[in-house]
Amino acid sequence: MIRIGQSIDIHQLVEGRPLILGGVSIPFEKGLLGHSDADVLLHAIAESILGALALGDLGHHFPDTDPAYKGMDSKEILKRTVGLMEDEGYRIGNLDATVLAEKPKLKDYVESMRYNVAQIAKCDLSQVSIKATRGEKMGFVGRQEGIAALCVCLLTKKDDE
Amino acid sequence: MIRIGQSIDIHQLVEGRPLILGGVSIPFEKGLLGHSDADVLLHAIAESILGALALGDLGHHFPDTDPAYKGMDSKEILKRTVGLMEDEGYRIGNLDATVLAEKPKLKDYVESMRYNVAQIAKCDLSQVSIKATRGEKMGFVGRQEGIAALCVCLLTKKDDE
Amino acid sequence: MIRIGQSIDIHQLVEGRPLILGGVSIPFEKGLLGHSDADVLLHAIAESILGALALGDLGHHFPDTDPAYKGMDSKEILKRTVGLMEDEGYRIGNLDATVLAEKPKLKDYVESMRYNVAQIAKCDLSQVSIKATRGEKMGFVGRQEGIAALCVCLLTKKDDE
Repeated sequence: MIRIGQSIDIHQLVEGRPLILGGVSIPFEKGLLGHSDADVLLHAIAESILGALALGDLGHHFPDTDPAYKGMDSKEILKRTVGLMEDEGYRIGNLDATVLAEKPKLKDYVESMRYNVAQIAKCDLSQVSIKATRGEKMGFVGRQEGIAALCVCLLTKKDDE
Repeated sequence: MIRIGQSIDIHQLVEGRPLILGGVSIPFEKGLLGHSDADVLLHAIAESILGALALGDLGHHFPDTDPAYKGMDSKEILKRTVGLMEDEGYRIGNLDATVLAEKPKLKDYVESMRYNVAQIAKCDLSQVSIKATRGEKMGFVGRQEGIAALCVCLLTKKDDE
Repeated sequence: MIRIGQSIDIHQLVEGRPLILGGVSIPFEKGLLGHSDADVLLHAIAESILGALALGDLGHHFPDTDPAYKGMDSKEILKRTVGLMEDEGYRIGNLDATVLAEKPKLKDYVESMRYNVAQIAKCDLSQVSIKATRGEKMGFVGRQEGIAALCVCLLTKKDDE
């Protein structure tokens, strides 16, 4: 058994917040607004896993009205999601994510992000792809109002291997 | 044999139209503009199936210039698409969709949408994932000008099972 | 072994440039701005292959600061990417792409685009799906400021067949 999942996550870029992407703190004049640490990349990755298993969306599991998740490290969100995946008997086949950000340049941080995700998702670095692209000055990404992330994943049933 | 498909669909939110998503009528002050009932979610799901089979896009099969499709219930569009899939010898492995809407809140309707899709696509509820997210006040979704839907699917060849 | 990849690519529509999509020159009053020929569809397809193999993004392999890629035919970019895929022992299972463009109408060109991709990716036409949709007058696509392309792909390991 193999299952597919996808997700898109979107957060506003605002002053006075740290920028955390893929669990990596990135020096930048703005950061992402959200109830948790607003790590748009880890959110998209986690939700693609939930989606593959038809377990509902991220807001269902980690409601932004729940004080327990206020300021939460999204690595913990991914960790719990991976736990739910394991409960269902699945593991990561591979996942492929894209961060849409006009600035800052992310290429120096991508390897650290991949390492974080592979560690938490209990898979090999070769099973985790993280890419970055820009909005070409168009749309909310291009105007630097926000950052979005996309992810697709394949999960495989452990018994089948 | 296993095949992957994806789709994005976009419709304007306007006054004087009903809001129908996943075959569910949702009480809201606006609805989606389109030639059919403009069910952006069922369109994205149906087109991802067409895409997986390389059968062309939704506009090819259900042209918005054809009076036959004016006001059409998109459940019928999905049903016909599922028929095309069966003709090719495929069935749903699983599908994972996201509705991007600033308002209204969709969580109370998601289970009914999943039920509708599973019935029409002749698969189990566990093979249908529907998620909802917001535009965070940005872009055409965030400004409530429109609603978009994304879907990915895996189809499996019946003979292989 | 089966692997999934996805990509989104975005380019501005400007005057004084040719419009090339899927390797097909399309008569239109504007074209896409970019360092290479800015073929947003071939870029999304190529990058989805790189993503499936966790080989980094398109900018990593074909930096837009490198004069060698200035004005480059993106068919060459896809060809080189397919070479990298073969080096890893993979081939195309199937791929499904969508071009998001308000204008021009693309349906008369889709079959030529599919043919180009299948030739370069060394697969059958039935493994290549290209769809087109509009922005419904919303967002940068709807305002005709730019064109975007999405792609997902499945790659299969040659040894497994």
